[in-house]
Amino acid sequence: MTAASSRPRPATASADLSEYFERVRQQGMGPLWKAMGELMPTTPKPREVPYQWRWADIRDLVYESSKVVRVEDAVRRVLMLLNPGLPPEQAAVTQTLYAGIQIILPGEVAPAHRHTPNALRFVMEGEGAFTTVEGEKTILRKGDVVTTPNWTWHDHGNESKGPVVWLDALDIPLVNALSGMFYEDYPQKTHPVRDAANSSQRTYGRALRPTGETRASNYSPILNYTYASAREALESMPSTAWSPTEGRVIEYINPLTGGPILPTMDAFLQQVDPGMDLKACRQSASRIVMGVEGEGTLEVEDQRFRWKPFDVMVVPAWAKHRVVPSGRTPAILFSYTNAPVMRALSLYRETVV
Amino acid sequence: MTAASSRPRPATASADLSEYFERVRQQGMGPLWKAMGELMPTTPKPREVPYQWRWADIRDLVYESSKVVRVEDAVRRVLMLLNPGLPPEQAAVTQTLYAGIQIILPGEVAPAHRHTPNALRFVMEGEGAFTTVEGEKTILRKGDVVTTPNWTWHDHGNESKGPVVWLDALDIPLVNALSGMFYEDYPQKTHPVRDAANSSQRTYGRALRPTGETRASNYSPILNYTYASAREALESMPSTAWSPTEGRVIEYINPLTGGPILPTMDAFLQQVDPGMDLKACRQSASRIVMGVEGEGTLEVEDQRFRWKPFDVMVVPAWAKHRVVPSGRTPAILFSYTNAPVMRALSLYRETVV
Amino acid sequence: MTAASSRPRPATASADLSEYFERVRQQGMGPLWKAMGELMPTTPKPREVPYQWRWADIRDLVYESSKVVRVEDAVRRVLMLLNPGLPPEQAAVTQTLYAGIQIILPGEVAPAHRHTPNALRFVMEGEGAFTTVEGEKTILRKGDVVTTPNWTWHDHGNESKGPVVWLDALDIPLVNALSGMFYEDYPQKTHPVRDAANSSQRTYGRALRPTGETRASNYSPILNYTYASAREALESMPSTAWSPTEGRVIEYINPLTGGPILPTMDAFLQQVDPGMDLKACRQSASRIVMGVEGEGTLEVEDQRFRWKPFDVMVVPAWAKHRVVPSGRTPAILFSYTNAPVMRALSLYRETVV
Amino acid sequence: MTAASSRPRPATASADLSEYFERVRQQGMGPLWKAMGELMPTTPKPREVPYQWRWADIRDLVYESSKVVRVEDAVRRVLMLLNPGLPPEQAAVTQTLYAGIQIILPGEVAPAHRHTPNALRFVMEGEGAFTTVEGEKTILRKGDVVTTPNWTWHDHGNESKGPVVWLDALDIPLVNALSGMFYEDYPQKTHPVRDAANSSQRTYGRALRPTGETRASNYSPILNYTYASAREALESMPSTAWSPTEGRVIEYINPLTGGPILPTMDAFLQQVDPGMDLKACRQSASRIVMGVEGEGTLEVEDQRFRWKPFDVMVVPAWAKHRVVPSGRTPAILFSYTNAPVMRALSLYRETVV
Repeated sequence: MTAASSRPRPATASADLSEYFERVRQQGMGPLWKAMGELMPTTPKPREVPYQWRWADIRDLVYESSKVVRVEDAVRRVLMLLNPGLPPEQAAVTQTLYAGIQIILPGEVAPAHRHTPNALRFVMEGEGAFTTVEGEKTILRKGDVVTTPNWTWHDHGNESKGPVVWLDALDIPLVNALSGMFYEDYPQKTHPVRDAANSSQRTYGRALRPTGETRASNYSPILNYTYASAREALESMPSTAWSPTEGRVIEYINPLTGGPILPTMDAFLQQVDPGMDLKACRQSASRIVMGVEGEGTLEVEDQRFRWKPFDVMVVPAWAKHRVVPSGRTPAILFSYTNAPVMRALSLYRETVV
Repeated sequence: MTAASSRPRPATASADLSEYFERVRQQGMGPLWKAMGELMPTTPKPREVPYQWRWADIRDLVYESSKVVRVEDAVRRVLMLLNPGLPPEQAAVTQTLYAGIQIILPGEVAPAHRHTPNALRFVMEGEGAFTTVEGEKTILRKGDVVTTPNWTWHDHGNESKGPVVWLDALDIPLVNALSGMFYEDYPQKTHPVRDAANSSQRTYGRALRPTGETRASNYSPILNYTYASAREALESMPSTAWSPTEGRVIEYINPLTGGPILPTMDAFLQQVDPGMDLKACRQSASRIVMGVEGEGTLEVEDQRFRWKPFDVMVVPAWAKHRVVPSGRTPAILFSYTNAPVMRALSLYRETVV
Repeated sequence: MTAASSRPRPATASADLSEYFERVRQQGMGPLWKAMGELMPTTPKPREVPYQWRWADIRDLVYESSKVVRVEDAVRRVLMLLNPGLPPEQAAVTQTLYAGIQIILPGEVAPAHRHTPNALRFVMEGEGAFTTVEGEKTILRKGDVVTTPNWTWHDHGNESKGPVVWLDALDIPLVNALSGMFYEDYPQKTHPVRDAANSSQRTYGRALRPTGETRASNYSPILNYTYASAREALESMPSTAWSPTEGRVIEYINPLTGGPILPTMDAFLQQVDPGMDLKACRQSASRIVMGVEGEGTLEVEDQRFRWKPFDVMVVPAWAKHRVVPSGRTPAILFSYTNAPVMRALSLYRETVV
Repeated sequence: MTAASSRPRPATASADLSEYFERVRQQGMGPLWKAMGELMPTTPKPREVPYQWRWADIRDLVYESSKVVRVEDAVRRVLMLLNPGLPPEQAAVTQTLYAGIQIILPGEVAPAHRHTPNALRFVMEGEGAFTTVEGEKTILRKGDVVTTPNWTWHDHGNESKGPVVWLDALDIPLVNALSGMFYEDYPQKTHPVRDAANSSQRTYGRALRPTGETRASNYSPILNYTYASAREALESMPSTAWSPTEGRVIEYINPLTGGPILPTMDAFLQQVDPGMDLKACRQSASRIVMGVEGEGTLEVEDQRFRWKPFDVMVVPAWAKHRVVPSGRTPAILFSYTNAPVMRALSLYRETVV
């Protein structure tokens, strides 16, 4: 008997089964053996599809959003990236991940709130906006990665002279699939600032810990991972630490666990030098990739996405993918995935193809 | 400013927004501020609804299934319990959980396979079927809880004189929501039996461990948790260990971690004595409850389900629920939930109402 | 340059060094380079030596102890096994472990107290004594392993008709080396019994857990691991789980962690069948071995200890050792080690010789 | 019955007990009831005593050591600090900790080796020496904390123009008490340098992690924690994070676990501002304290140590102690303890007095 042959084989036609199935249906039930092939494929069949949003195509729409709605009315002024394989009402870039482009104008303040979805942002354009999380404030610079973990009070604003734009990465579709959404508005527009600016970065971000303070360890205590640090780490990385599938790549980690930056998402900065010949791989996590510097090609199954800075691309779960450098300068890419979810539930797999 | 007032307020009608939204849509995007209220409710809004399947109503259909399909054709002969709030093609009793009633006739063998969804079964009727998992065989008796963890080879059959019926509990909808499904058939119909019957129970089930063997610890090494053991534990439980919301209740645990029996599901046997006045509670996990002995009422939000043995009931995520005993004998209930998923992702909450 | 040649070489004689060393000594200091060879040998140099106490030689002295001191006066009526390589005032059978033989007569009660050293006992002769730990009582039978973890109130007594004798295993020398000793007497002679007899065994000992109760997980919640269970587990152990150095061997584990029975000691029951040809090994833990059934030889470095039931033997840290069966029946051995300490501090090593 | 009264009470004189004790002794045994009071005190009785080494008193001897022995002969040119309460051959500053002052001259190289004791150093005088650990090299500056974990190859040298002096902190007495000492010389004088200087600091020290590299997590991957970082963290620490017993204090942590810098020792930098009124406390860990900047008083039980920079002081286990600032500038203190050992074995306690 071959493996394939033991999949369910509906019995050859017998006159009265449709009547039986109807009686089953009326009792709120269904026969597993008719559904099993669809329900339990041999490898993942995600509904998200490979896709690319070109920054050149969407940048104007993002800036235009700042004219059509006030931040006080929008709470967050964001255009969501909606994967064409998924229903738009799920607000999903993959089955579990969310991505959006947010813009904030000089003088604006986005009201304080908290929610169970975890969030991180990657700053794309402009400089001088701020984010406050649980009373600590940080000033955002291009390329900074800023966290807003599950159920932490947060607000942000823009005290600079120009608009600031960033990528928002959240796990909203996951949290809704799990019926885990809680949301609360802060009684005031902004949460009081209590700590010195960037104090979390200056302690936890240097592997130090105030002994008089105890924090939950399920998310990173660091508010801002600066771009300068991450770039310098990529540059100084010994070649023994390079990945055969991703080149130079660092993960932003939680220094209280050594694990991912957030309990449901991990995030990476990657450098692919000209001439690097990387291997393709598959992972049972879905991945969102954003170009940051240089340019190149991201191959996803049979598609080839030529990217430039701030283009966003989708690598569906278990899709074969590969980064191909081009040009004369290193390509820098930011990405995030839901791998921490898959690992926590013993569902993570990866394979070099 | 009240909390409610800071939810997004779409700007008052401006003539050209529909045209803007259309341009946004054409780029594969959408405005968050129009979707946020639906997307991020203040408390969970699961789509599963409270529901009850009465064993008296469905028992005949289960036995009839053994006539309409051969086990070799069905792989597993199961009627799935489909929550009316969810699309039937999701095979879901809640957004993340699956429940089905399986029957196997004397002499039948269900072919060996493995898959990433975790499974456990609770034996309802008949005695003498067997399950083999990774080479260890166990004979099933009424009330036994038997595990089939993620990616373990398993088959089962019936060497007794009568049909055997059990409840199958899996995490199929979760695994599909996460695009984590892998499935493989075993090259032979059955997996070779290697170990002494119930050897895992005789070692790990007594807090002993063979030092020459190392097992992954993310699922319980115990194949069969007998009903006799669980009932006796309920009887001898000191009152200091009773729960104010659930009465006497034991969790089936993984003795390699002290944690849940499976990485995505926990399971419980509960005894509510006549006269116990339990408190209602909410949990951000969904729960499937099956009556085992005695009878009583399960209140779920504004519904009251009067249950008898082997009735199955749904407690949606965050639904207020309470067990009310009735009659003169203790009520015994089996249940399972997705709480381990919620805990692993820092999304678990509970509250006494 | 060979490895050996880079060990410190005190400079060739220079007239004034003794005067320098004296000035150093007067300031409470000393030169590392003179001490380093002794201080940092290339492999462990424990001070405990291989040793054997024959039950035939010491049994009468144990029984005689019940005549020379009253249990109320002794608190615990125990003869300690003192390794001849260690100072007697350390009460040490190895540098970190303690072993003693305790006897309790019918009608006696040993007063309740608690202390930071962890304890376990292995019942040798007699039946019907009881131990109470934190309000749970258990009746001791031959071969049972009973735990008394760090800082738990405990007392014991003998309600049977004859004397009862057991081996006490503690970590007293370790706790003193770490300056971690705390000790407290209970205000009454006995601690009140609160729980049903053996309730911990009936729940945690079957991989069940009362959900209304939360226990610290750093020690096993199980009071009594019965000999019958352990023997049956040895018998049913599949040969794939046998150890090449120890034969059939089960570890008594903490079902809340899968780890050792106590945070500082692990314990094992071992069966070596006639004809088994085991390999010798070294471990950076020290081990105390007691014969239980059958007979055989324990080789420790260049010594060969012929043992019979209840003989106690010392395997020093890093000593080469091997169990050789003899006779026609399986040899059963109980042992305990300080390996959990070594593992917790990343100091554990083992090697097959 | 009072607690004290249930301690062992040797039976009133009976003529023949000395003869019984002699027979017991001849069998390698001893009566517990005669030893118990000494063996199990009610609180820790460490043998180390409170003590102070004044830098002014010992500095010349340290520099003189560089004349009396060549580094090639000494392997490490160190004067050990020997606690007067402990036997000098234990090389112990407390029962489990070691402290020494090391000096290295321009052009010297201390040969490469590895050992199971963990080490860290705190740089006191001079600048420009280097340490290499497992192929990564770092240049030492005053106040830097540098780790040399269990069984990592390491060497160091001095490429600057002047001598460099540091404090060595190790767990040698602990490792010897546990019989866990392994030591090996490297076949060459120095270990090859493979990684970019300070690469571990530039990645792990910023909460980043190369994904192509996997390190054991039981010790910190960071080679050098710079003084500048630690001082800045103390300055920016919000007052909500201050400790009532220690003032501003940061722990050097392992960013792969959030735990201590080494599996057996933790280390701290502390700032006590003028006027801070700290509380006294006891800890079941022993602590070595070194003044770094400013001056003040360290009270240990009934002693008052007036300290200046680079004085070293001993706080024995469970000794009441308190830091009292003096002068007009903040007092900066470095300290290390064996608390990770005590925590790992469930023996840690602390209390504010």
